[in-house]
Amino acid sequence: MEPGFDIVKAGHIEFLVTDLQEARRFYADTLGLVVTETDRSHIYLRGLEDRHHHCLTLTESGAPGVGHLAFRVATEAGLKALEGVVRAKGGYTKWVEAGEEKGQGKALITEDPFGFPVEFYTKMADEEWMLQKFQSYKGAKVMRLDHFNVMLPDVAAAYDWYVKELGFGCTEITETEGLTPDLWAAWLRRKHTCHDIALTTGKGPRVHHAGFTVADRSSIMDAADLLASSGYLRSMERGPGRHGVSNAFFLYLRDPDGNRIELYTGDYVSADPDWVPIRWKLNDPQRQTFWGAPTPASWFNDAMAVRSPKTGKFAELTSPRIKDRPDYLLSAN
Amino acid sequence: MEPGFDIVKAGHIEFLVTDLQEARRFYADTLGLVVTETDRSHIYLRGLEDRHHHCLTLTESGAPGVGHLAFRVATEAGLKALEGVVRAKGGYTKWVEAGEEKGQGKALITEDPFGFPVEFYTKMADEEWMLQKFQSYKGAKVMRLDHFNVMLPDVAAAYDWYVKELGFGCTEITETEGLTPDLWAAWLRRKHTCHDIALTTGKGPRVHHAGFTVADRSSIMDAADLLASSGYLRSMERGPGRHGVSNAFFLYLRDPDGNRIELYTGDYVSADPDWVPIRWKLNDPQRQTFWGAPTPASWFNDAMAVRSPKTGKFAELTSPRIKDRPDYLLSAN
Amino acid sequence: MEPGFDIVKAGHIEFLVTDLQEARRFYADTLGLVVTETDRSHIYLRGLEDRHHHCLTLTESGAPGVGHLAFRVATEAGLKALEGVVRAKGGYTKWVEAGEEKGQGKALITEDPFGFPVEFYTKMADEEWMLQKFQSYKGAKVMRLDHFNVMLPDVAAAYDWYVKELGFGCTEITETEGLTPDLWAAWLRRKHTCHDIALTTGKGPRVHHAGFTVADRSSIMDAADLLASSGYLRSMERGPGRHGVSNAFFLYLRDPDGNRIELYTGDYVSADPDWVPIRWKLNDPQRQTFWGAPTPASWFNDAMAVRSPKTGKFAELTSPRIKDRPDYLLSAN
Amino acid sequence: MEPGFDIVKAGHIEFLVTDLQEARRFYADTLGLVVTETDRSHIYLRGLEDRHHHCLTLTESGAPGVGHLAFRVATEAGLKALEGVVRAKGGYTKWVEAGEEKGQGKALITEDPFGFPVEFYTKMADEEWMLQKFQSYKGAKVMRLDHFNVMLPDVAAAYDWYVKELGFGCTEITETEGLTPDLWAAWLRRKHTCHDIALTTGKGPRVHHAGFTVADRSSIMDAADLLASSGYLRSMERGPGRHGVSNAFFLYLRDPDGNRIELYTGDYVSADPDWVPIRWKLNDPQRQTFWGAPTPASWFNDAMAVRSPKTGKFAELTSPRIKDRPDYLLSAN
Repeated sequence: MEPGFDIVKAGHIEFLVTDLQEARRFYADTLGLVVTETDRSHIYLRGLEDRHHHCLTLTESGAPGVGHLAFRVATEAGLKALEGVVRAKGGYTKWVEAGEEKGQGKALITEDPFGFPVEFYTKMADEEWMLQKFQSYKGAKVMRLDHFNVMLPDVAAAYDWYVKELGFGCTEITETEGLTPDLWAAWLRRKHTCHDIALTTGKGPRVHHAGFTVADRSSIMDAADLLASSGYLRSMERGPGRHGVSNAFFLYLRDPDGNRIELYTGDYVSADPDWVPIRWKLNDPQRQTFWGAPTPASWFNDAMAVRSPKTGKFAELTSPRIKDRPDYLLSAN
Repeated sequence: MEPGFDIVKAGHIEFLVTDLQEARRFYADTLGLVVTETDRSHIYLRGLEDRHHHCLTLTESGAPGVGHLAFRVATEAGLKALEGVVRAKGGYTKWVEAGEEKGQGKALITEDPFGFPVEFYTKMADEEWMLQKFQSYKGAKVMRLDHFNVMLPDVAAAYDWYVKELGFGCTEITETEGLTPDLWAAWLRRKHTCHDIALTTGKGPRVHHAGFTVADRSSIMDAADLLASSGYLRSMERGPGRHGVSNAFFLYLRDPDGNRIELYTGDYVSADPDWVPIRWKLNDPQRQTFWGAPTPASWFNDAMAVRSPKTGKFAELTSPRIKDRPDYLLSAN
Repeated sequence: MEPGFDIVKAGHIEFLVTDLQEARRFYADTLGLVVTETDRSHIYLRGLEDRHHHCLTLTESGAPGVGHLAFRVATEAGLKALEGVVRAKGGYTKWVEAGEEKGQGKALITEDPFGFPVEFYTKMADEEWMLQKFQSYKGAKVMRLDHFNVMLPDVAAAYDWYVKELGFGCTEITETEGLTPDLWAAWLRRKHTCHDIALTTGKGPRVHHAGFTVADRSSIMDAADLLASSGYLRSMERGPGRHGVSNAFFLYLRDPDGNRIELYTGDYVSADPDWVPIRWKLNDPQRQTFWGAPTPASWFNDAMAVRSPKTGKFAELTSPRIKDRPDYLLSAN
Repeated sequence: MEPGFDIVKAGHIEFLVTDLQEARRFYADTLGLVVTETDRSHIYLRGLEDRHHHCLTLTESGAPGVGHLAFRVATEAGLKALEGVVRAKGGYTKWVEAGEEKGQGKALITEDPFGFPVEFYTKMADEEWMLQKFQSYKGAKVMRLDHFNVMLPDVAAAYDWYVKELGFGCTEITETEGLTPDLWAAWLRRKHTCHDIALTTGKGPRVHHAGFTVADRSSIMDAADLLASSGYLRSMERGPGRHGVSNAFFLYLRDPDGNRIELYTGDYVSADPDWVPIRWKLNDPQRQTFWGAPTPASWFNDAMAVRSPKTGKFAELTSPRIKDRPDYLLSAN
């Protein structure tokens, strides 16, 4: 019960992009993420609320996908403890020296038991807080990274890993219908929001999206207008709308390489340690979009490949044993 | 050029409903229209901004549809002049005595040359302005009637009627593709907004929807949340979203009988007499929803039957000579 | 009753500024008005909703103030008719040739019977509509000029001029307390909004402010944040807040020269020709700000000098016979 | 460093009111807090986001003020540990049996070393989550209790108590000017928001206000409109506006007894354990209201008396050694 480490929050994510300048136009010029630093093959970005070096790294690469996702950990001792926990479950680990990832201290890169490239880190260089530099606000006015959403064949096993081994709390779940429902998805948190990571059933390991917080619904509406008149009409995959799960207001976007992010606002504070998970049935039409709008098939079909820190290649995919989408979408296809 | 009458604005509309109490729960209790007066078979409603008796009449009836739509005219002399104009074009006219429609003075009911039941009226009883009685705001906080949208086979002929005979200005049009495009739809105004009436191509005469103004985008988002948790999930047919045409923010609703209204906000001021109509192509994916979201087929298939003031029966329908929807919807069906 | 002219709306205003680049930084770079054209001593700006050349001219000058305010008139014949009306009341008139004011056709400049430099014009060059070019939105996202607010000693006389001679409708008035109240202020309109011009009692002739429409309350909040972090903290003179009169949401700003504008949104449609003016008492604490916040003394003390088209000098000021502010402000000073 | 207890968050507060029905009209009928339970002398209220019995208790009493404020603690063992910590510092403690306060389990009431009636509790009865019952939203749509703001003479000492003994993190501070600045105020948190409690310098012990979260800025604007038209014009003491400290959007209200609450929205996530406190100078004009609007004197003069759990009487007040307000307010008085 005393893990020896304290995971703070979803910290940052590395997106692989095939054209760094196209990606910059999307994330920085249009959505308004702040460029902290660049080099020949990377752009390091942070949100207006961030006080650290980056929450999103864009890395030029031959194919799109996710290089790694990272959780911030309270202490360096915690990183060492995590090394043991990951290895005990058969995961791969490797130390990353301070500065190897720009702005970051010594870190632990792992391939977790489910094949995800997960980094744990403690130190990140301080950067100027732009929260009250309103003259630098633009586009969607992205505040900060909020969460990761990952897709994998066995959510129940990953739930145990995150909750029992890594100490996450569960705020909401989705289960299948029937007498003996399967756990289909789970929303898990360390910081006091709806989630730091969501686990959903599907062919995996893949990252479904990274969620970025914006200030309010108006920011999302304004972003939709802006994208629609800036040549990004086809980037808007789903929304704007209200979620059932999380109660947040959302807009899902595909970047020029097809990588997916969510603009997200208005979930709740989940500080209570005895929080009883909210339960949803997979087929509930209000679960995904509270207003009942159907989710496009691409939302279930497409997700981002993850690059193995062990092999440097994209992870092989496994299909789930149980259905990977609601029945109303199965029948529509 | 001097018509002898001055049409002020879209004034009110009469919806036929099969269950008055169900309709009241939708329009008054949920959407927040203000009940001015009721009798056994009618509910007279007004918006928070209205200073007159009603902008929407609900009339209990064996079948849903539209009893009449009405334009306010500046003077009683204007009504007399309009009688002549309608008759000259072969339309039917009949005088409605003061009080025959509750709250209304002497009026002219017509069946216009296209089969629509159109009333012209001048006097309407004054009622309390609720605009700054914020304690009476609820639901979607409907401010006022904004416009009618009607569907008929020959938009070009109706355009001539409204613009050349009735003195409307044109703010926007939609035309078909090709070298010799057909006029597919037109947005026409008397008051200084985008429109008082829109004419669109389809099987008709039918009324497609009545548009009601709300204060802002937040009101529309709040209305969607409210409807979704009040048993009206299936009432939300299309939106919320941003229109291409009119630039307004919208949500389309079907009442318990299937009658259609629009919650509408944020168009522009069109006071300039030399306004050059904005032109859209029918197949432009941003024309209807600026964010590119496709319009459901029901939006082109369904519209409200109109009751003839001459026969008391619903008007027979005629199909248009030209296509009644964009190509991407034709092929999707 | 048939005036021979048809005033369309408040069209544009010329502000005199002592430093053109400072003024540009305020109006264009910060508030987001669109620069249509510049020359050595002028910047011509329009709003995002405007389809014509300018609604605001900044003219470099030795002292701040107002060069002229202008109403758009439907026809050139109307300009000629207006020349007669102004002269009949002892006003001064002079023709301005097409192009003399950039983008504008032939116009009539007058010094009206109350000493205001009022221009009437018909033609204005067409410009690109930015309304759906959301990528060009910035700052307060100013949509268009809405109204002028002028200060003069005899509001009752000016009311007669605008209503009886120029054909304006009256939407709201403020009167003094007591058995025989004086008309203290009036809100008058040609287009179908709350007003094109407001007349208020005070030392005059002076222009109190020009009101510019923004899309919604969020735009005003965002503008306040932006101004506060862009070195314009002291520019925010009053608000944000809700008006009693007009029901609009507002923020009053002073430009670097002290010229005053209002960011304004959310009034009502006033198309009805029989609109009964809303009546307010001068001492009603909710009249100016519906939430009861007191108005600063500067709001009653300061207004913009007007330059006489006849003499080229600033108009001499006359004090009103009646009090120029509510009692609660008289006693506070 | 291992305290044996884990304070979760600001949990609830008890306001003493002289007229229970007047208080209900304000908090429930107008602001929209949800009534969970009532008895002859109490009303127990919760927010739309709350899943527990109450975050605000109204207790009928001969004089207004605060009965107690309460922090939720993760475990019952933690309550026992807290008893020791409070006693070690000379505080008074007393056990409250389960059910003695409606809906609450066994709890520890204390008079802390600074004279504040602070309760620690663990269990609170579960109640229905109204977050997605949008049909029950009304008024200001209050989501949850966010924080307490207390006034006392020695902020530095209370800072040590909260940070070193109770384990709070510090997000922002205000210090006086000069070479050896005094700590004038501190914002402290357990949950991952800007604060659970703020300590400010003034005559004390008194509670300055309780802050309640609302969904967004629109909710605050709507609340101001509603209060202004519901007979609560004088209840609006300060705002709406943007805070410097916390960056939140706010409106301060006085209830019919003068007790003060804040409607609050839009601060940041403070999960990082190495958060470096944001520093403000007391005289910075943007510290309290980012837009520079001056704070009324009542804000520094008035605060709520606290009732001693030991004596049942209101605590005696001590004045601070250092100034209790910014210089610009000292000179204005």
